[in-house]
Amino acid sequence: MSDTATETAPRGGAWPDSPFLRQLAAVVRAEDAYGNWEGKPDSELLAEYILTAEERREIPIIGDPDPEVIWRIEKFYTAIGLMLERQTGCMAAPIAKFNHEGWGRIVLIAGRLVVISKHLRDIHRFGFETWEKLAEAGDKMLADANDMTERFPEAARM
Amino acid sequence: MSDTATETAPRGGAWPDSPFLRQLAAVVRAEDAYGNWEGKPDSELLAEYILTAEERREIPIIGDPDPEVIWRIEKFYTAIGLMLERQTGCMAAPIAKFNHEGWGRIVLIAGRLVVISKHLRDIHRFGFETWEKLAEAGDKMLADANDMTERFPEAARM
Repeated sequence: MSDTATETAPRGGAWPDSPFLRQLAAVVRAEDAYGNWEGKPDSELLAEYILTAEERREIPIIGDPDPEVIWRIEKFYTAIGLMLERQTGCMAAPIAKFNHEGWGRIVLIAGRLVVISKHLRDIHRFGFETWEKLAEAGDKMLADANDMTERFPEAARM
Repeated sequence: MSDTATETAPRGGAWPDSPFLRQLAAVVRAEDAYGNWEGKPDSELLAEYILTAEERREIPIIGDPDPEVIWRIEKFYTAIGLMLERQTGCMAAPIAKFNHEGWGRIVLIAGRLVVISKHLRDIHRFGFETWEKLAEAGDKMLADANDMTERFPEAARM
């Protein structure tokens, strides 16, 4: 981890050069209707995606999940969908369903194809220890979504 | 409409002999953990699925949609999913996403295939004028779901 990275990203370690992180930051930034976040770096906009081991332990999993957690999860999948669209031409959007205990399912749908399907538990604790791990998770999912799209191109293009 | 039908189903007209209506009633009845509805006929359990033209006009579409409307819509698709499973062997479950203005999307997913995809508006006013129309809507959707499953059997069975 370089000194520069430590300065700009005290939590989450070094900020990798990741197309997924840039896309995710762009998705979050798109919600900034009033330009309040204009001067903020991507790492600040995405700060809540980082959850250190210590922070994870401190989060109670009792009670309804924070709506902001659900929002962050949806943006994560929206970013995957946008990258998939750029790579394959197939538009993809997420639909999620979580219960009050913080578990449920999220799917990313292109046409009539479920390109990603994930059952999530303890979404109260959704987060990644480092930027590197967040970027890897995005890359992995995008690869899976691409595989599904290649396997069933007709359904994905409906 | 026979007199008997009028007696048992004052709203919604005659009760047709419909496998879909029986399935939907069974899905609703499955939620009756304490047996409170044991003596109730199917038409009473499903009464809220009927919305006459007059009732429709009286429903304000301002304000958040009633959670019970969303529940009813999900049960409607759950019933389709169960019938599809019996006919094709493919389990199917709905995921819905509605906003505060009462519009959104519901999908019924079998394996990795979206067998039904519907964009709904004004869900405040979800309902059918007659039992006949409710049964027809179910039959139509089940036919669509079957068509999709036949078209992409491999994705539906993943």
